Amino acid sequence: MQKGIDTELFLYIKKYKLILPGEQILLAFSGGGDSLYLLYLLKELQKHIAFSLEAMHVHHGIRGEKAERDLQFSENKAKEWGIPFTSVRVDVPAFSSENGLGLEEAGRILRYEALEKRRAEWEAKTGVLTKIALAQHMDDQAETVIHNLLRGSGISGLSGMKREEGHRIRPLLSIRKQDIIGRLHVLSLQYMEDESNEDLQFTRNYIRNSLIPAMEKVNTRAVQHLSKEAELMNELELYLEKKAADFLQCFGTEEEGKIAISISNLKEEPAFLRREIYRMAVRRLQGEIRDLSGSHLYALDSLIFAGSGKRTELPKGYIGEIRNKVLYLRKRDGKVLDL
Amino acid sequence: MQKGIDTELFLYIKKYKLILPGEQILLAFSGGGDSLYLLYLLKELQKHIAFSLEAMHVHHGIRGEKAERDLQFSENKAKEWGIPFTSVRVDVPAFSSENGLGLEEAGRILRYEALEKRRAEWEAKTGVLTKIALAQHMDDQAETVIHNLLRGSGISGLSGMKREEGHRIRPLLSIRKQDIIGRLHVLSLQYMEDESNEDLQFTRNYIRNSLIPAMEKVNTRAVQHLSKEAELMNELELYLEKKAADFLQCFGTEEEGKIAISISNLKEEPAFLRREIYRMAVRRLQGEIRDLSGSHLYALDSLIFAGSGKRTELPKGYIGEIRNKVLYLRKRDGKVLDL
Repeated sequence: MQKGIDTELFLYIKKYKLILPGEQILLAFSGGGDSLYLLYLLKELQKHIAFSLEAMHVHHGIRGEKAERDLQFSENKAKEWGIPFTSVRVDVPAFSSENGLGLEEAGRILRYEALEKRRAEWEAKTGVLTKIALAQHMDDQAETVIHNLLRGSGISGLSGMKREEGHRIRPLLSIRKQDIIGRLHVLSLQYMEDESNEDLQFTRNYIRNSLIPAMEKVNTRAVQHLSKEAELMNELELYLEKKAADFLQCFGTEEEGKIAISISNLKEEPAFLRREIYRMAVRRLQGEIRDLSGSHLYALDSLIFAGSGKRTELPKGYIGEIRNKVLYLRKRDGKVLDL
Repeated sequence: MQKGIDTELFLYIKKYKLILPGEQILLAFSGGGDSLYLLYLLKELQKHIAFSLEAMHVHHGIRGEKAERDLQFSENKAKEWGIPFTSVRVDVPAFSSENGLGLEEAGRILRYEALEKRRAEWEAKTGVLTKIALAQHMDDQAETVIHNLLRGSGISGLSGMKREEGHRIRPLLSIRKQDIIGRLHVLSLQYMEDESNEDLQFTRNYIRNSLIPAMEKVNTRAVQHLSKEAELMNELELYLEKKAADFLQCFGTEEEGKIAISISNLKEEPAFLRREIYRMAVRRLQGEIRDLSGSHLYALDSLIFAGSGKRTELPKGYIGEIRNKVLYLRKRDGKVLDL
């Protein structure tokens, strides 16, 4: 593997403005090959763009000695390269059993929490825009798309992981795992084996080790195509979000934590856009939509074909309710709002 | 399997108005399980809806005795049930070698040609709307979606086969193969084994026999979910087609086989919608878009970022050309049209 992919990625980062001069980048650094290459890449990129870089290692409290070794390796590597380093210890097994979550899911939540916390601290301290850089690559993207596809999770699922999503950036989404490994080999960079390949839940590993290779038998560029479909779906999702925002602008009234939407106008839009409109309305009311499921959206949508007085429960004590040909989204105990 | 699926399908056919009273339905009848069940279903449906039904068998000229046996079986079954029957012999091997096509692709083309020809004749003779009924089911749909997904064929690929597409209807798209087989068993209906499972090209069989079962290990409802994604993509496709038509209405000028589109307005739309706009413009010019490939669409799209005078070739002697911030689609030797 040539130096080519470094340059390709510099151009990618530049094209999509993933990192701009002056910004602070917090890299999630496990010590595995992907994040080691990203650390190397960003270190090299600092020669071209003036930004601050810090590597952060989250110690999961699982796999005993190996986890200590990963932490030690990460710290040493950062020190060797003169890159500021922080680490934090989280108790994944405890969090997992307390919340009835699988180890993978629990680890993911705690890892992101720790990264977000450090990001906010760093940003607050300096007042400079701070982003989290994640090392997910095209193969990870393909796995995510397939996983979501088989769950039937619609457009947002098919759009997979985003290149840029809030404070998070994923500069490696455009390259294959094998290109990363090849480049690390050329650079003679040792890295920690990611043992999670064995530990992780069945599904993800099965997709990675059986399903994707089987798909590549059908089409050798299957992973690239899946990744391209994800980009297309992502564009589509942004387009539909804009259409939903335009719709709410025209046909929705927002006041004091309540939103009223005209049903006759809703009915003129296709079902997938209506669901996007509900999603956006709830996000405006609640600030986020983490607890909003597909079934909430379908329930809201069936409301608009039901009679006046019908209602459905939404997360966080909100409801959707029909009155006089208007769909109201509001707190359960709040007053309705006239359109 | 209960009589349930017959009723479910009656409702499905009714809901989507696939067959209306008075219409003529030409069923593609291979003698295999799927089309035998569809023949049975439509025969039963005639008790509720008054429409004409004819079964047509296309003899492929391959697999010697077995093909004769399939034809005989089909004819006998139609006779037994009192359903008008026609058959036609096509020479798939000859067509295949003359056109450098695989047997499957050649068979598909000749089969559809024969069906379309008979459909047109029947319609012309009676002056009554005539449709072709095809027996593809949900498992076929899932295979198509996966095949297209791995080829990276975008929204129209992911939308798979359509429930209704021009004169063609696919009443079985909402049910699983296993439900059809189960129902045939309960009805004690014998059918011809579809030997194409062995003869067909590698890809399709591999998807059917290896990939789909592997996907069902990840999610037991994978086939249903793929089919649902296809429906969603289909809705999306229709929505985008409408948006493209609206756009051409506002920002395109059509005259004497030429179309002119304002570039500044094109640039305000997302890339996937621009491609839909080009596709629609070419369809308006040429009546169809069979020869229009994705690379034509991408070439047209890069034109709008190029300078005046740049052009690109399109199928059937057409070109796309930029002049004075306008994109012209026209015959290569035609005059340009002012916007």
